Amino acid sequence: MEERSVDVAVIGSGTAGLNAIGQIRRAGKSFVLINGGEPGTTCARVGCMPSKAMLQVAEDYHRHRQPSQYIGDGRGESVLDGREAMEHVRDLRDTFVDRVLGNSTDNMPEDLFIQDYARFVAPTLLEVAGQRIRAGRVVIATGSRPLVPPAWRAFGERVLTTDDLFELEDLPASVAVIGLGTVGLELGQGLHRLGVGVTGFDQLTTLGNTQDPEVSACAIDLLGKGFPIHLGRAAEITEEGDKLRVTAGAHSVLVERVLCSIGRVPNVENLGLENLGVALNDRGLPAYNRHTMQVGDLPVFLAGDVDGERPILHEAGDEGKIAGYNAARDRITAFRRKAPLAINFCDPNICFVGARWDDLDPETTAVGQIKFAPVGRALIMGRNRGLLRVYAGKSSGVILGAEMIAPRGEHLAHLLCWCIEQGLTVGRLLRMPFYHPVIEEALQAALYDLYGKVEAKNEGLTELATLTGAGS
Amino acid sequence: MEERSVDVAVIGSGTAGLNAIGQIRRAGKSFVLINGGEPGTTCARVGCMPSKAMLQVAEDYHRHRQPSQYIGDGRGESVLDGREAMEHVRDLRDTFVDRVLGNSTDNMPEDLFIQDYARFVAPTLLEVAGQRIRAGRVVIATGSRPLVPPAWRAFGERVLTTDDLFELEDLPASVAVIGLGTVGLELGQGLHRLGVGVTGFDQLTTLGNTQDPEVSACAIDLLGKGFPIHLGRAAEITEEGDKLRVTAGAHSVLVERVLCSIGRVPNVENLGLENLGVALNDRGLPAYNRHTMQVGDLPVFLAGDVDGERPILHEAGDEGKIAGYNAARDRITAFRRKAPLAINFCDPNICFVGARWDDLDPETTAVGQIKFAPVGRALIMGRNRGLLRVYAGKSSGVILGAEMIAPRGEHLAHLLCWCIEQGLTVGRLLRMPFYHPVIEEALQAALYDLYGKVEAKNEGLTELATLTGAGS
Repeated sequence: MEERSVDVAVIGSGTAGLNAIGQIRRAGKSFVLINGGEPGTTCARVGCMPSKAMLQVAEDYHRHRQPSQYIGDGRGESVLDGREAMEHVRDLRDTFVDRVLGNSTDNMPEDLFIQDYARFVAPTLLEVAGQRIRAGRVVIATGSRPLVPPAWRAFGERVLTTDDLFELEDLPASVAVIGLGTVGLELGQGLHRLGVGVTGFDQLTTLGNTQDPEVSACAIDLLGKGFPIHLGRAAEITEEGDKLRVTAGAHSVLVERVLCSIGRVPNVENLGLENLGVALNDRGLPAYNRHTMQVGDLPVFLAGDVDGERPILHEAGDEGKIAGYNAARDRITAFRRKAPLAINFCDPNICFVGARWDDLDPETTAVGQIKFAPVGRALIMGRNRGLLRVYAGKSSGVILGAEMIAPRGEHLAHLLCWCIEQGLTVGRLLRMPFYHPVIEEALQAALYDLYGKVEAKNEGLTELATLTGAGS
Repeated sequence: MEERSVDVAVIGSGTAGLNAIGQIRRAGKSFVLINGGEPGTTCARVGCMPSKAMLQVAEDYHRHRQPSQYIGDGRGESVLDGREAMEHVRDLRDTFVDRVLGNSTDNMPEDLFIQDYARFVAPTLLEVAGQRIRAGRVVIATGSRPLVPPAWRAFGERVLTTDDLFELEDLPASVAVIGLGTVGLELGQGLHRLGVGVTGFDQLTTLGNTQDPEVSACAIDLLGKGFPIHLGRAAEITEEGDKLRVTAGAHSVLVERVLCSIGRVPNVENLGLENLGVALNDRGLPAYNRHTMQVGDLPVFLAGDVDGERPILHEAGDEGKIAGYNAARDRITAFRRKAPLAINFCDPNICFVGARWDDLDPETTAVGQIKFAPVGRALIMGRNRGLLRVYAGKSSGVILGAEMIAPRGEHLAHLLCWCIEQGLTVGRLLRMPFYHPVIEEALQAALYDLYGKVEAKNEGLTELATLTGAGS
């Protein structure tokens, strides 16, 4: 068997792998990029981009059909063309996939980009496409795929995942969404707003990965007003003619399709990770350091969704950069990871930033909150439903985290996350400019509530620092 | 004439005056609040709130009528009910006015809240409603009103300002908007989207107070696609039957109404400021210190729109707090003012933050920019028009300011402004989390562009700090 040597081999040409390659190139090292299956990132092909395209169509149509006291006639008649809608989603997706490929693998020579599945023979020896590659270092960035229980595969195309949903020529009449994490919640609400009869199921008693009990309750209340949601019981699927019956406890529904969004599994099963010579966990993964992305003391690095830790694009990119940076150097550098930021693009957005509710000590944590009902701009926008909760150290006043279901939550989450990144206090935040009337004033109100509960207070005027440092 | 003594007299019960009262109360001082004319803030009565309500209706209707490849039937038939729309705007406005009054003057006893016009007899002696008030300190927070040239008053109700626009029972068929600053631009676009035939005029060659020539050009291009805009020549009005003809250079239009939005003047003419014994400028105002709000060495303070310096709500609130804080104390404290933040809620938003273009030294300033066309989320939203320009010190990399016409610009402006408040560098900003796909990624792209032009660079990975401080 032919054998080649390179400085670094990267397995997987998704977001993490491409970011790793960028660092390896910059360091002037030789490399090979190996990808089994379809090229293009999870984000562009089946993740962020097509889902956001579908959500935008759904929001447009939803707003179009809202009753209005001042827009008359024609409104009730508007009809969505499902085929056109799906084609629009695919057109946008193709634009994004083409862009990714055009900027990465499209122009790579064949010897640098091998399109086949790789397998470890030893930690630095790979087999792929009938050749052996001896690499100084290896980056594993093979990503993940939707988890479908084996028994459900028998139902064939009637059980959809994000891998095939966007390929539908037309919208189904009815869908049961099983699993109401980020993916299930976004697409469930999207399909419902597109006129599909959606029923949601999750065996958890929360949805969208919320942890704060107040936010959880508000999310269930608000999103449950859209389509029926059944929580707390595992769903089962049975066949009924050409339809599927989904049952969870006392709730049962007959649907054309099931969207299975119960989680994702790492793409590792044929990778030969057992030949790394280290222990693998129950997901088939070796232990790694999240600050270096190194696997034990091996010249092997993990990056991106394959590790399942922060399966979102900007974190996958960071992991790829860290893995590539270290794979291209003799000394390993540990990098500080960013303050956690998660956004669910359902309406209202569900977001969490910084420390999660379950990790906070109630004894030392202060919580400030605001319901959106009275927020001026939210009232004007007709989007005054939601709840924002912000956490701070009781004595230090340092902002620790936040959870929300909020209109324009994506923007509030960025603002909060950037402040958490810098270790700012609630008092400092209250000295920031808040324009009027903006949704950011909801954050301001939550911060005032929080400020009353922490010990660290500003001198003089809460909202303004003295110029001279001297108080009165 | 009866004479009373109080620690502090506040003239004007708008945003600045009410914030001053809050500080005076907190300090335990006696006070009287005096207000001539209608109670309620400029913001709630005739400013931020009714204008945003009208813009929201306009945006809803505008989006409703957008051609769509996937929403069919009924669309072309939708008709706006102008009377209902105006009533909706007034209903919302009344909610906000009632809220302001309910939280402030509604429950004030008569001896604390005098509803009449005050006049200075001497710096600490006022005449109002047939009595004299001797005040230890006086806060002047009388606000401003729309400027209308005397000659145009002859056209009666056909020349509107924001004082009467929202009182219209129905929408006019045609309006010439003279003055395309923030007010004229927001309301001009709003009226246009509500189906009114709008023509815009400004004697300046820019609109919306833009200064950056690239942003100015982009704003003129984008907003001019909506309704005709004529810049660079002063507009004149003549009568033609029951209509008005507005002419500026070669451009002429016959309209039902004119919206005069050429600026605002301070409410000072009957206040007797000449009795303060200090020089008054050509707007009739004495010199004051923006960090203390004190007028010279007098026990007199200015606050809010009356001074014309930062006529926006959060700054008026800050000025009221500073004036009230100092008026209630023996020693004067100087406060640091916030990083400037201005948002024009036209679509796309026009915003500026921090230092303005005209104040920057081209020799020492680096400029990064992004056009919104390729930004993924903007493309998905169908709002991919706009330009964001960010300024930083060439050598320090410290972000100095930004100007933009951008979708969701209001949120980008907050994010940037909070970073400018803290003196952050472009390199530090690139280490902040940017989710995907979000409009904030446009800012990220502009920052990458800017990063290439400044000397201050991050160690190691641009996007991540080392955990240990040690590079490779």
